[in-house]
Amino acid sequence: MATIVVALGGNAILRAGQRGTHEEQLANVDMTAEKLAQLVKRGHRLVVTHGNGPQVGNLLIQNEAGRDLVPALPLDACGAQTQGQLGYMIQQCLESALLKEGISLPVVALVTRSRVAADDPAFANPTKPIGPFFSREHAQQRMAGGEHWIEDSGRGWRRVVPSPLPLEILEIEAIKTLVAGKALVVAAGGGGVPVLRRGDKLEGVEAVSDKDYASCRLACALGADMLLILTDVDKVAINFGTPEQKNLDRITVNEAASYLAQGYFGTGSMAPKVKAAIDFMKSGGKKAVIASLVNAVNAVEGKAGTIFLP
Amino acid sequence: MATIVVALGGNAILRAGQRGTHEEQLANVDMTAEKLAQLVKRGHRLVVTHGNGPQVGNLLIQNEAGRDLVPALPLDACGAQTQGQLGYMIQQCLESALLKEGISLPVVALVTRSRVAADDPAFANPTKPIGPFFSREHAQQRMAGGEHWIEDSGRGWRRVVPSPLPLEILEIEAIKTLVAGKALVVAAGGGGVPVLRRGDKLEGVEAVSDKDYASCRLACALGADMLLILTDVDKVAINFGTPEQKNLDRITVNEAASYLAQGYFGTGSMAPKVKAAIDFMKSGGKKAVIASLVNAVNAVEGKAGTIFLP
Repeated sequence: MATIVVALGGNAILRAGQRGTHEEQLANVDMTAEKLAQLVKRGHRLVVTHGNGPQVGNLLIQNEAGRDLVPALPLDACGAQTQGQLGYMIQQCLESALLKEGISLPVVALVTRSRVAADDPAFANPTKPIGPFFSREHAQQRMAGGEHWIEDSGRGWRRVVPSPLPLEILEIEAIKTLVAGKALVVAAGGGGVPVLRRGDKLEGVEAVSDKDYASCRLACALGADMLLILTDVDKVAINFGTPEQKNLDRITVNEAASYLAQGYFGTGSMAPKVKAAIDFMKSGGKKAVIASLVNAVNAVEGKAGTIFLP
Repeated sequence: MATIVVALGGNAILRAGQRGTHEEQLANVDMTAEKLAQLVKRGHRLVVTHGNGPQVGNLLIQNEAGRDLVPALPLDACGAQTQGQLGYMIQQCLESALLKEGISLPVVALVTRSRVAADDPAFANPTKPIGPFFSREHAQQRMAGGEHWIEDSGRGWRRVVPSPLPLEILEIEAIKTLVAGKALVVAAGGGGVPVLRRGDKLEGVEAVSDKDYASCRLACALGADMLLILTDVDKVAINFGTPEQKNLDRITVNEAASYLAQGYFGTGSMAPKVKAAIDFMKSGGKKAVIASLVNAVNAVEGKAGTIFLP
């Protein structure tokens, strides 16, 4: 019996190549929910976090398509919209999967904000691409309005936003209260909506905090026993996708930090996951695991995935 | 010191004639938050509910405009998106307004579902118009896909959906837990996302539950001391907008039910508010008040609005 923060990767909700209909997403989340229900059945208390990249991308496309009819919303508001959308889907599917196992457990989805620092260096250097590719003309028009866009050779122009570090999950006390009250909480969707505190004023910012870092902050503040980062590969590997690929079953925090510093994990999506796992362990966490979604149950039992050791 | 369920009307977030930019909405919610902060300062515990008509309307327009690029989402998912969007805005503005008063109080926004009955007669008779007006051709195409549309003379065609009665707020235990933990909860946005329970399966439905009825259900289940329905008129009136208009300061539940049955409140937005107030009182509530947002503080103190007596 452990308290586990489960960070769901994009594949838990939308698969590569899918367009993103509600039905496709529900079918994926149903499968994800079955896995999570198995963990609950084994007595674990879960707090679930999730990404929102494709969903916020779709909203940005819709905002753009409807711009002449309806004012487009800023990224922070779109992020909050995806928290509602995905929180709702996860709670519907997860409560259903639990009921199927004879477990009546409320699944509660919270709008969640991540506090970030106004002097985070990320604000001077926006690097996180969001939304679809557009033409140079579109990008130039937007840049004139103050946005940052970069060209991706051959694919067009894409908006980039800052990715500041999440310092604090503003809803942490509510999450603790709900977990203590035996609810299964869904929180920190998309890494939480990034907000600044300026004096008495809370201000949303057009930025994206990494969802794995935010999950780490959440797991640390909760005193969770485990941070379980679920993705679409079975194990963390070094030299991924090369003839020298080596899958890692167990790795110490120091080894992981060393590989990370040497760039062994590439710059893809694995590096932030490894960094979040390291940070969790360094902040006093007992166990961090990166595993594939389908192996979630085995991963918690130490029979799958990559386990981070102190 | 009372526990008050405050139902915010549309004008708390978007004024008539505004297009619905994020900035316009934030400015309105800032003003609303100042009023609510005054109630908190006076020692009251608030649970805040809100409408989502204009926001879900805008999302439907964006879904339509982007339909060739991105799959359109069903109404239940759009409703959940607005809960994220508006919950986020309300918590940002309200925490800021509270901090300005020297009060550090977490404002927590929950994705909220209202359970409805599959055999609710509303499903056989969709009457609630949603979204914008469209052409006859558009409506006919949609009707061929199973949707219900009606013609509004001169203004075009508009989709209508069922408006089933909310039987139960599915997040009620979480809301109770958070209220007991001293959080200010934002819930039941747009009347809650309507869902059916079929055996072990929870299913979202494309429908809209009335937000004042949902607020009444919430207030009853919480055992709230007061249901405060805030709108844009100072008092409930009979013969509203005619030379015989008579504003009501105090009214018994039986008088209100009698006026309602005789159609004195018209079929506009006041009838459901009056019905929600009557239902709350009949379910054992101590006090229901319908008042204008600007008079919220006076209304709680019995100096403004229409007070419903047992």
